[in-house]
Amino acid sequence: MHPVNSSIRILIILGHPDSGSLNHAIAHAVRDDMLAAGNEVVFHDLYREGFDPLLLAEEIPDNGGIPDIIQAHCDELRSADGIVIVHPNWWGQPPAVLKGWIDRVFRPGIAYRFDEGDSGEGIPVGLLQARAAVVLNTSNTIETREQKVFGDPLDAIWRRCIFHLCGVRQFHRRMFTVVVTSTREQRAAWIEEAKALCRDAFGQDANRSPDAGRASQHD
Amino acid sequence: MHPVNSSIRILIILGHPDSGSLNHAIAHAVRDDMLAAGNEVVFHDLYREGFDPLLLAEEIPDNGGIPDIIQAHCDELRSADGIVIVHPNWWGQPPAVLKGWIDRVFRPGIAYRFDEGDSGEGIPVGLLQARAAVVLNTSNTIETREQKVFGDPLDAIWRRCIFHLCGVRQFHRRMFTVVVTSTREQRAAWIEEAKALCRDAFGQDANRSPDAGRASQHD
Repeated sequence: MHPVNSSIRILIILGHPDSGSLNHAIAHAVRDDMLAAGNEVVFHDLYREGFDPLLLAEEIPDNGGIPDIIQAHCDELRSADGIVIVHPNWWGQPPAVLKGWIDRVFRPGIAYRFDEGDSGEGIPVGLLQARAAVVLNTSNTIETREQKVFGDPLDAIWRRCIFHLCGVRQFHRRMFTVVVTSTREQRAAWIEEAKALCRDAFGQDANRSPDAGRASQHD
Repeated sequence: MHPVNSSIRILIILGHPDSGSLNHAIAHAVRDDMLAAGNEVVFHDLYREGFDPLLLAEEIPDNGGIPDIIQAHCDELRSADGIVIVHPNWWGQPPAVLKGWIDRVFRPGIAYRFDEGDSGEGIPVGLLQARAAVVLNTSNTIETREQKVFGDPLDAIWRRCIFHLCGVRQFHRRMFTVVVTSTREQRAAWIEEAKALCRDAFGQDANRSPDAGRASQHD
C-alpha cells in the first residue's frame, strides 16, 4: 500500500530570460505535474516578473528594513515544503537574477540564524522547513568536463553553501547537457526525468489525482 | 637592476553595496596604488554606477545586439593588461550585480570563442590578453570551514570557470576573513596585503613614481 497523498506546498523558482527555453519547459512541466498531484504550487519566473536582484546596503543587517515584495518571497521560502530551482549553468553559477533572489530572500531569521552570543562569524543554524530541494540545471558542457576541468561549482553552491546550511538535508540535482546539440526527443525525455525526480523527492505517489491542484502562481 | 616600469592598463571591478565597506577600502587602495605606479586604471563600482545585471535573451546569440554601455565594458575587458575583482563571499558566489557583469560582458568574441564547425558544445578558446587576474574576497567564514564544509566554490568559479577558460593563466586569489570580528589593524594589514598582491601579480616595481598615473575612472 502506498500512503495516501497529502497536499504539500511547492516553491518553484525559474531564472532564464528566454520564455522559449528548455528551462521554461522544464519548470512549467514540473509545476503542472505538481499541481496535478494535488499540491499547492508557488511559481516565480524571475525574469518575467522583473525581479530586482540588487541587495541594498540597508537590507544587510539582521533587522534591516526590506520591501514588501522581498518579505513575501521570504514568507514563501520559509513556508515551502519543497523547493525546485531551475536555471542554466552560466559560468558555474546561476544567472544574476537568481543570484539576487538568493542574496535578498535567504535572510537571517528566515533561512538561518546565529546562536546567541555569536557575532556572525560562527556556525549558522538552518531554519528552512522544506523536506527536500531539487535543482535542475541546463548546460552546454559535457558532465566529465564540468567536473574535472571546472569542479562543478554549482553543486557545492546549492548543496553545501545554501541548502545544507539552511537546514534542507534532502538535496537532489540534475544537470541536463549538452542542450545546444540535443534532439527534440532528448529534451522531451529530460522533461519527463525532471518531473519524476521532483515526484520522488517530495514523496509524491505516482497515482495522481488530476485537477486536484490549488494554484498560487505568479507567472 | 629592476626593469623599467612600463604603464599597463588595469581594470578594477568592485561589487559591494556599502560605500563604507572593507571591499571599497580595498578596491580604492589598489586603484590608488596602481595609479601611483604609473598605470592606467579603469575602475567600476558597479553598485554606485547602477550597473544593470540582467542579461537579456536577445544578447545571448554570438551576434546578438548589445547596448553601448555593455560594448564599452567589453572593450575595457578585452584591452585590460591586468584585472582586479573585489567582492564579498555571498553564498559562495559574487553579489548579483557582479554576476551580471560576468553574464553580460564575458561574451563570445570578447572573452572566448569556439572553433569553426563547433556548435557551442565544444572547447572554447580564451581570448583575453590580460597577463594576470587577481580576485580579492571578504568573508565571515574561517578558511578551513570554507574549504572543508563548503568546498570554496568561489575559487573554482573565478580560477577555472572564468579566467582559465578565457585565457588568463596567471591567477591569484585572496579571501580576507573573518571580517565581522576583525580589528582596525587587521583590516589595515589586509589592505596593504591586497596592494602588494596586485603589484606582484602585474609585475610592478616597488619603486613607484608618484603622480605618474593616468586616470580613466568611472566612480
